[in-house]
Amino acid sequence: MINIFTKYIAAALILMLSLGVQGGNAADVSEHDPLPSWADGPVKSAILGFVRDVTQEGGADYVSHEGRIATFDNDGCLWVEQPMYPQIMFAVDRVRELASEHPEWASEQPFKGILEDDMASALAAGKHGLMEMIVQTHAGMTAEQFEKIVLDWLSSRKHPRFERPYTECVYQPQLELLVYLRANGFKTYIVSGGGIQFLRPWTERVYGIPPEQVVGSSVVTEYQVIDGKPALIRKPEVNFIDDKEGKPVGIYEHIGRRPILAFGNSDGDMQMIEYTTAGEGRRLGLYVHHTDAEREYAYDREGHVGKLDKALDRAEEEGWIIVDMKRDWLKVFPDAGE
Amino acid sequence: MINIFTKYIAAALILMLSLGVQGGNAADVSEHDPLPSWADGPVKSAILGFVRDVTQEGGADYVSHEGRIATFDNDGCLWVEQPMYPQIMFAVDRVRELASEHPEWASEQPFKGILEDDMASALAAGKHGLMEMIVQTHAGMTAEQFEKIVLDWLSSRKHPRFERPYTECVYQPQLELLVYLRANGFKTYIVSGGGIQFLRPWTERVYGIPPEQVVGSSVVTEYQVIDGKPALIRKPEVNFIDDKEGKPVGIYEHIGRRPILAFGNSDGDMQMIEYTTAGEGRRLGLYVHHTDAEREYAYDREGHVGKLDKALDRAEEEGWIIVDMKRDWLKVFPDAGE
Repeated sequence: MINIFTKYIAAALILMLSLGVQGGNAADVSEHDPLPSWADGPVKSAILGFVRDVTQEGGADYVSHEGRIATFDNDGCLWVEQPMYPQIMFAVDRVRELASEHPEWASEQPFKGILEDDMASALAAGKHGLMEMIVQTHAGMTAEQFEKIVLDWLSSRKHPRFERPYTECVYQPQLELLVYLRANGFKTYIVSGGGIQFLRPWTERVYGIPPEQVVGSSVVTEYQVIDGKPALIRKPEVNFIDDKEGKPVGIYEHIGRRPILAFGNSDGDMQMIEYTTAGEGRRLGLYVHHTDAEREYAYDREGHVGKLDKALDRAEEEGWIIVDMKRDWLKVFPDAGE
Repeated sequence: MINIFTKYIAAALILMLSLGVQGGNAADVSEHDPLPSWADGPVKSAILGFVRDVTQEGGADYVSHEGRIATFDNDGCLWVEQPMYPQIMFAVDRVRELASEHPEWASEQPFKGILEDDMASALAAGKHGLMEMIVQTHAGMTAEQFEKIVLDWLSSRKHPRFERPYTECVYQPQLELLVYLRANGFKTYIVSGGGIQFLRPWTERVYGIPPEQVVGSSVVTEYQVIDGKPALIRKPEVNFIDDKEGKPVGIYEHIGRRPILAFGNSDGDMQMIEYTTAGEGRRLGLYVHHTDAEREYAYDREGHVGKLDKALDRAEEEGWIIVDMKRDWLKVFPDAGE
């Protein structure tokens, strides 16, 4: 009798958990704090309240599972983007590696500057120059070869200040938020200005976000059969830029539904958040404001990386939530080895 | 005691089912035939054997959930494409509707032919002419407006021969296969030469495939804020053609993983199936061969719709499975009202 009873309780518990994982209101099942790295306060309350309201069956703000789409920027929102976007660091390493195959780079910016360790003159090539560098160094190989190059680079390089792999320079509060949203039936997406195929090889392991839920910028790809073997060849030509006005377009093309929650950190995310919060019913738009020079970095209106200026001005009137890193995050990075 | 025991059995059963739905081997849980509209024989055995092998933990051919990607063409593979692709019928109706706004169409093919009920001269405009017709009639409105136009059309039009809505001219055996694959942990996708946004408004209801799992051809879309309201504006310009060599490219861009099962019915699907079956480990490539003029249509090497020619020649040497509609499908369409 006791044995059967114990088994029944165990089965029921597993069943409850299993339903929770499939999207029931997991927050009701367990009483622990689902966001332990978020400081108590208005920001955390807004997030918890939003999730409670859109998952409450019969409530005025209820959204069925299908509509629970949450999109996150990556650079500066899920992982560190200072002192320079990791993908630019990757491209710089690729330039050095490929230089012998490209004698013309010795006299062309930004390649020349990089090869001469003169980053100031390389950066002077501006946005167009950096784009050209990314396109040139991310093409000319198959999809599989590029994936291997990305993974090899990530496993061999460390962030210059934090001295840990870039994939460990991710924000612990955001990892908790992603888990919490999924436990409440959300599909979590990355919508990044960065390269879609630079992200996909590792987002599932690091964020629990599978490749098919990553949207990003891309180069043109061609299908070819080489020596009887099908291959996808990456061409040195821009296909799509998933930034600013491009983000809602990328969402429309890849997801085909408007998110109900969008999280960014720069003016490049403003259109995504504007589009998300303009939808009917409850919506949540959030920005990470980098205010913590001690634990991470402090920056907003100035600079070449992650500029947050216009969106900061509009946030209050639009009801977008500004997450103050210093105030709202009790912890920034996961403990080493986590 | 009996009460507790009954509850325990019920909980355990629900638990088993719930695990099955999450991707366990559901075929083992129930003993009923998961594919009742498929005739017993080598084709059905090949499908059941494939699914059994890739879901058998510890087996040589085991594929984890993440890798269980199945892609299906739509026209002629999931729904009827004869006597003409439904999307072309939609575009023809759109031409008639929009004619007053386009006086130039009175003298331009294929528009002129359509407006004069002279389909032969309209079709003489060829592939380029039809593409131009699709692009012109699918653009110039917001994403939301287009979705409404598509749904209104589908609910008001019927297939000329079967006299039922196009969304009921879907293949019952394929509906069963989609459910069976998902019950075994597969993610099911549509990868269609047709318009991605023509499909997305209804694929979830009809096939259980959500919009984010639909890949297709597209027009250029622009994000604009009009009178303070964000909108995605569809432009009369081709963005991507998801056909032939385009299908593996569309899969790479949208899904980012190679499928392990691909199902098509025409030469337009050949590269998708070639790419899928060239991957390592167990793979399955399948073609619907339309051999049933009585219940549906019989066509392959000739004609303007769903030509199956080169792929039919290559199927045997490549080990691609040819599904003979007349022989392998006990039933073609769902019963009315199903």
